[in-house]
Amino acid sequence: MKIPETMLAANLAAKGVIKLVEKPVPTPGPAEVLIRVEACGVCGGDLKVRDIGLPGQPPFGEPFTIGHEYAGVVVQCGPTVDEFAVGDRVVVEVHKGCGRCHNCIMGEYTACLNFGNKEKGHRANGFTSDGGFAEYALNHINSVVKIPEGISFDQAILITTAGTALYAFDQMGGYIAGDTVVVVGPGPIGLCLVAAAKALGAENVVLVGTRKSRLDVGKQLGADYIVNCSEGEDPVALVKELTGGVGADVVCDAAGAATSLDTCLNLVRPAGDVVMVAMYKKPITADLGKAVKHNVQLHTIRGEGRLNVPRALSLMAQGKLNLDPLLTHSFPLSQIDQAFATFEQRIDNAIKVVVHPQEK
Amino acid sequence: MKIPETMLAANLAAKGVIKLVEKPVPTPGPAEVLIRVEACGVCGGDLKVRDIGLPGQPPFGEPFTIGHEYAGVVVQCGPTVDEFAVGDRVVVEVHKGCGRCHNCIMGEYTACLNFGNKEKGHRANGFTSDGGFAEYALNHINSVVKIPEGISFDQAILITTAGTALYAFDQMGGYIAGDTVVVVGPGPIGLCLVAAAKALGAENVVLVGTRKSRLDVGKQLGADYIVNCSEGEDPVALVKELTGGVGADVVCDAAGAATSLDTCLNLVRPAGDVVMVAMYKKPITADLGKAVKHNVQLHTIRGEGRLNVPRALSLMAQGKLNLDPLLTHSFPLSQIDQAFATFEQRIDNAIKVVVHPQEK
Amino acid sequence: MKIPETMLAANLAAKGVIKLVEKPVPTPGPAEVLIRVEACGVCGGDLKVRDIGLPGQPPFGEPFTIGHEYAGVVVQCGPTVDEFAVGDRVVVEVHKGCGRCHNCIMGEYTACLNFGNKEKGHRANGFTSDGGFAEYALNHINSVVKIPEGISFDQAILITTAGTALYAFDQMGGYIAGDTVVVVGPGPIGLCLVAAAKALGAENVVLVGTRKSRLDVGKQLGADYIVNCSEGEDPVALVKELTGGVGADVVCDAAGAATSLDTCLNLVRPAGDVVMVAMYKKPITADLGKAVKHNVQLHTIRGEGRLNVPRALSLMAQGKLNLDPLLTHSFPLSQIDQAFATFEQRIDNAIKVVVHPQEK
Amino acid sequence: MKIPETMLAANLAAKGVIKLVEKPVPTPGPAEVLIRVEACGVCGGDLKVRDIGLPGQPPFGEPFTIGHEYAGVVVQCGPTVDEFAVGDRVVVEVHKGCGRCHNCIMGEYTACLNFGNKEKGHRANGFTSDGGFAEYALNHINSVVKIPEGISFDQAILITTAGTALYAFDQMGGYIAGDTVVVVGPGPIGLCLVAAAKALGAENVVLVGTRKSRLDVGKQLGADYIVNCSEGEDPVALVKELTGGVGADVVCDAAGAATSLDTCLNLVRPAGDVVMVAMYKKPITADLGKAVKHNVQLHTIRGEGRLNVPRALSLMAQGKLNLDPLLTHSFPLSQIDQAFATFEQRIDNAIKVVVHPQEK
Repeated sequence: MKIPETMLAANLAAKGVIKLVEKPVPTPGPAEVLIRVEACGVCGGDLKVRDIGLPGQPPFGEPFTIGHEYAGVVVQCGPTVDEFAVGDRVVVEVHKGCGRCHNCIMGEYTACLNFGNKEKGHRANGFTSDGGFAEYALNHINSVVKIPEGISFDQAILITTAGTALYAFDQMGGYIAGDTVVVVGPGPIGLCLVAAAKALGAENVVLVGTRKSRLDVGKQLGADYIVNCSEGEDPVALVKELTGGVGADVVCDAAGAATSLDTCLNLVRPAGDVVMVAMYKKPITADLGKAVKHNVQLHTIRGEGRLNVPRALSLMAQGKLNLDPLLTHSFPLSQIDQAFATFEQRIDNAIKVVVHPQEK
Repeated sequence: MKIPETMLAANLAAKGVIKLVEKPVPTPGPAEVLIRVEACGVCGGDLKVRDIGLPGQPPFGEPFTIGHEYAGVVVQCGPTVDEFAVGDRVVVEVHKGCGRCHNCIMGEYTACLNFGNKEKGHRANGFTSDGGFAEYALNHINSVVKIPEGISFDQAILITTAGTALYAFDQMGGYIAGDTVVVVGPGPIGLCLVAAAKALGAENVVLVGTRKSRLDVGKQLGADYIVNCSEGEDPVALVKELTGGVGADVVCDAAGAATSLDTCLNLVRPAGDVVMVAMYKKPITADLGKAVKHNVQLHTIRGEGRLNVPRALSLMAQGKLNLDPLLTHSFPLSQIDQAFATFEQRIDNAIKVVVHPQEK
Repeated sequence: MKIPETMLAANLAAKGVIKLVEKPVPTPGPAEVLIRVEACGVCGGDLKVRDIGLPGQPPFGEPFTIGHEYAGVVVQCGPTVDEFAVGDRVVVEVHKGCGRCHNCIMGEYTACLNFGNKEKGHRANGFTSDGGFAEYALNHINSVVKIPEGISFDQAILITTAGTALYAFDQMGGYIAGDTVVVVGPGPIGLCLVAAAKALGAENVVLVGTRKSRLDVGKQLGADYIVNCSEGEDPVALVKELTGGVGADVVCDAAGAATSLDTCLNLVRPAGDVVMVAMYKKPITADLGKAVKHNVQLHTIRGEGRLNVPRALSLMAQGKLNLDPLLTHSFPLSQIDQAFATFEQRIDNAIKVVVHPQEK
Repeated sequence: MKIPETMLAANLAAKGVIKLVEKPVPTPGPAEVLIRVEACGVCGGDLKVRDIGLPGQPPFGEPFTIGHEYAGVVVQCGPTVDEFAVGDRVVVEVHKGCGRCHNCIMGEYTACLNFGNKEKGHRANGFTSDGGFAEYALNHINSVVKIPEGISFDQAILITTAGTALYAFDQMGGYIAGDTVVVVGPGPIGLCLVAAAKALGAENVVLVGTRKSRLDVGKQLGADYIVNCSEGEDPVALVKELTGGVGADVVCDAAGAATSLDTCLNLVRPAGDVVMVAMYKKPITADLGKAVKHNVQLHTIRGEGRLNVPRALSLMAQGKLNLDPLLTHSFPLSQIDQAFATFEQRIDNAIKVVVHPQEK
C-alpha cells in the first residue's frame, strides 16, 4: 500500500486550541503497526485533554495529536509483527501498559504504575501519545483489535465505550443472566452498560436519568424500564416492585454526580454489587454504612481493561450489541472544530460524533 | 450432666436497662444445643442493643437476654444433633441465616434477607434471639464451633471479632503473604485485623489511630508500624516510603469516622483493595473519584461470615493469633453493670471485658 | 383449590420395576409447598435410580416415587411460606441441601455432606425423597422456582438440565462473551451447554459428537460448527483454525467417555478452562500433563447448583434459550412404561420424553 | 563496579554434555540488568534441558548457558532501569512473558503463547535463554526480585520453588488458614508446599511419600503428619480421622506419578480443591468421576507465576518459611559436573545442590 510522507493531523496547539497541521507519517517500530485512520470518535475525554490537561499528557504547546477512539486499516507492520497484516481492518484501545510494573505484570494494564511514562513503554493513545484525529496513526499491537466482518469503522469506534461497559461487569464477577441491573446516568458509557447488560442476559434493565432524549435512546438499546428523575419518577420504588422488595443485583453508577452513588446504595440488594464507572469530579457524600450493613461490594474500573474490547466486538458482530443509535453525527477531519462543538453542545441531541480523516 | 430448671440471665428490661432475672433453662430443639455459658464478652454492639435497639430486636420490655460473644460447654443436644456431644467446649458465632433466602442459599448468611425473622429460621444470637449473658444459652449448630485444645473460654470469646477480621481479608481475595496492609482505627476489630494480617504473612502492617494506649496494644499484636495522627504523624508519607511511592496493597477502614475512608483512599495503591469493616454512623464524604481513577476495589463485610470463625480459632490454636492483650477485665454475671460500665467508659484502658456466668 | 385425598403415583416397586399406585396426597410442612404436577421429564438419572440404585436412595421395595424434572401449580403452602402462593406456576430443582454442613453453609448445596440424610434436612427430589411422577408432589421452597409468563410446563421441565449447563459456566468463571466454546458430547446437557454458550455471547460454539441426529439438534440450538467424529472429522484441526492455532477458551466434557477428557485437553488453549459435567462411569486415562504444562484449569459441577435454574428460566423467557427441539415426546402418567422405553431406546430419535400426570 | 570482559560459563555443548567455556560478559539492554551470579541451584529441570531438550530451547550444540535458580548482585543496569541499582542483591524468576499475547496481557505470563520466541520478548532463563551457571548473567527486570535483608544467596535460590508452591495455593484461591492440606510427593516442590501451607496457617498438613529421608525433611519443614506408603501407612484413613470423615480441604499432587492423582481424589473432601503441580510424564488413569460427583475442582499451575516469588521471599524474611533443610550441598562452578552428579544420584541424600560461580 502506498503511504504518503506527510499527513494531516489535528494537534493540540495550545490549551483549548486544536489546529490542523501537516506532519510526517510515522514509521512503526517493533510490535507496532501504522493505521490509515478511517474514523475517530469525539469523547468527553478529548475535551478534558484539550481544555484541562490530564496526567501524563505532553505539555500544552508540544506537538501532540489527540483522539483515542479510532478505527482504520493496517498499512504497515513494524518488526516482529505477525499478529496483523497489511489490509487488516482494525480498531484500537486506549491503554497499553508498560509491561513491567506490578499491575501490568498482573494483567491490570489500565492501572499501569508507569502511566504516561513513554520511555518505559506505557501509552494511552490520544492521551499521552499521539492519537487518531489524523490521516495515519501508529499503535502498539497490544491495543489493536481486528474488526469482524459486518462491522463498519463507525460502529467499531464505539467499542472502547462498549468494552468499558463490559469491563465493569467483568470486574464485578461477569455473570449477569437473569439479574436485575440498574444503570444510573444515560451518558455514552451508561447507554453501553444498558446494551451490554441485555446482551449478557439481564432479566430487567432499568435506566435512570434526567434527560428524556437520552432515556429514549436507552430504550432503543434495550432498557426494559426508564426512570426520568426530572419528572419525579422514583427508581427505588420501581426496583423494589420488580424484585419483591429485595433490590437490584447490580447497580452501575455511570453518572458520577454528587448524589448518584447514594442513589445506587438505595437500589442495590443486600450482598449485591455496585460498579462505579464514572470519575467523580469532586469528593462525594454517600451513606456507605448501608453498603457495610448489607455486604454490598463496590467495584471500580478504569478504562476498557482486561481485553474486554474484543469481547464487545464479538457481541456486536453477533448482532447482540447494536449501538447504532449512538452514532448521531459525522464530519471530515477538516471540520474537526464543528465536530467538537456539536459534541460539546449536544447540538441536535448529538451523542457520538465521528470524524472521518480520509473524507475530503 | 445435671441441668437445673431455672437460671440467672441478664435481660433487657427496658431501653437502657439490663436486669438480672431468674428464668427457665430452655430445651434444645432440632439442630440445637444447650450451652452452659462460661464466658461472655461485652461488645460495642451490646451498647446499641441496650440503648438504641437494632433491626430485628425484640421490642424493649419483652423478655430478651443479650450477649453474643460467648463460650461454654455443651450440656444437651437437640434431636438430630450428632455434630456435637455433651461435654464439648464450644464458642458461638452471631449469625445463623434463615437458610431459605437467596443470600443464605448462596452462602452469604450474614446478609440474610430474612434478618430477624425467627419463624423463618434466622437468628442473630444476642441481637434478635436470646444470647449469652446467662448461665445457659440455646444455640443452633450452624453458629457453634468447637474450641481447640489449649484455648480458654476467655480467649475463645474473642473469636467473633477475629473471625470478622479474617472475613474482611477473605472477602477481598484472601491472600496476604508479602503484602503491605494498613489498618485505620485501633478498636477491637482493627486490632484483630492487625493480628490477622500478620498471621497471614503480611510483610508490613501499619496501624493508624489517635490513642496511644490502643496503638501500643496494636504493637503487641504485631503491627510493624504505628502512626499516631493525634501527634501529627502522617500515614501517607510512611506508606509511600515503605512501598516505593506506590501505596499499600490492602487498606482497612476499621474506624468508620467522617474522614477515615478518605484517608484509606490516599493510602492504597492503584489496583489495590480497601475493606470497609466499620459501620459508618452517618453519610460520609470521600474522594471516590480516586478509587475509580486507580481501579481500587472497595469491599465490605457484615459480621463474621463464611465460616471464618473456625479459621480464626485454628490460627489461635496454632499460636499465630495471640489476642490475649485484648482481654483486660472480667466480672461475674452478678456484676454485669460494672462490666458494661468498665467497657463503655474504658475504665483502666479496658478493651475486652468478659462476664463469667458460672462465677459466684 | 380442591385437593383430593389420594392420587396416582409411579412408585419404584422393586429393582427395575415401576408401578402405578394409589397413595395419599401429602401435606406440606414448614417451608414446603404441595404441587399439582403437570409435567415430569424422563432423565438418564431415572434409569439409574430404577435399575441400579443411587446413594441415599430408599431401598428397593420401600414405597418411593421417582421423577425429578417436574413442573406444576402450587395448590397448598405449608407453615411460614409466603414466598409462594396457591396458583403459582412452578418448576423444581433436584437438590435441597441440609443447610447445616460446611458445604451447605457455604452455598455449595449440591455437594451437601449429608446427602441422603432426610432427618438432617437434605433432599434430592426423585432420588432420595419422593419425586414428580405423580399427580401431586411435595417440595421444599429452596428447590422451587416460579415459571415466568410465556413458558409452558413442558418447556419448564428442561430447566434442570439448562441450569446444570449454566452452572458449568458459572463455576468456571461465568463470562463467555466472545469466547470460543467447544462442547464434547451431544446429550441433553451437552445440547443445553451449546444453547447456553450462545445465550451468554460465545463467538464460536463447536459441538463434537458421533450421532448425526443429535448434532443436527445442536445446530438448531445454536452450534456454529458441528464435528461428527464418526465421519472422521477432526475437532482439533477445526478449533486451531478458528483460533489462530491457540485453542478454545472453554471446553466442556459432556460425554464422559473413555477418551473424551483427552480430546478436551487437545482442544483447550493454554490458560483456558475445561469443565467436566459428565459423570465418568469408570476411571479414565488422560494426558493431564498437558493441563499442567499449559495452566489449564479443570472444573467440575454436580447438578444444577448455585441458583442457576432461575437464571436459565430468565434466559428462556427472554427468548435466548430456546430448547424446544429437545421436547420430542409426551405421554400420560398411565403410560409411564412407554415413556421410559421411548427414552431409553431412543425410539424415533427421542431426546426429552415428558409425562403429563393430569392427562387421562 | 569493575566488570571483566570475559567470564566462565557452563554451556550445553551437546546433548547430555555440559562444558565450562570462556565467553564475553553480556551488556544489558533496555529493561535489563547484569547480575554477578553468587549462587545457582541445580534443579530437575536442568537435567531435562541437558538430556532431552525442552520446547523453545536452543538446538543442542548452539552456545547456551543453563541454570535458572540463581541469585547475585546487580553490577550494571540497562537503559530505562530505575527499578534496580548497582549493588542490589537480587534473585531471579524463570519466566518473562512476551507481554503481547493474550495470556501475558491478562497476567498469565508463565503460560505465554509465544513461549520460546525471543524475538517477541519471551524468556525462560536457563531454559530458552542464557541462565545462571556462569559468573555473570543478564536478566529482564520482570524476572528479577530484590532479596530482603537477612536472606543469603543460597537461601534465595530456593525461592523459585517456594514461589511455585505459593502459586499453587494462589491459583486455588489462596486462603488456607485452618484448612487441612495434604501434599502427595516429597520432592523439592512438595516440601515447599508443606512449608508454605504452614506459613499460610494450615491447621493440619499431611505429607505423603515413600522415602523416609524425604519425609523426615518434611517434618522439619512443618508437616504435622507424615505418611510413608512404602511402610503400608494409609493416608486416606489418617485424613478421614483428622477431618471427621469428610476429607481434606486441599490436596496437592506433587508426585506426578501414575496413581498419585487417584490418591488425591480419595483424600479430598466434597467441594474441596486438588492442585496438580507436577508434570505427569505420561497419560495417567484416575477415577475423575469422583471429582465430578463431589464438585471437586482441579487446579494446575505452571512455574512460579503471578508474582508469588516476592511473596515467598517476604515469608522467608519474616522467618515463616525456613527452607534451610533443603540446602544440602554446594560446589564451585569448576565442579559443576560433581554438582549435577550429586543432585542426580541423590548422593548423601542430596536435595538442593548449589553452585557458587564466584568461588574459586
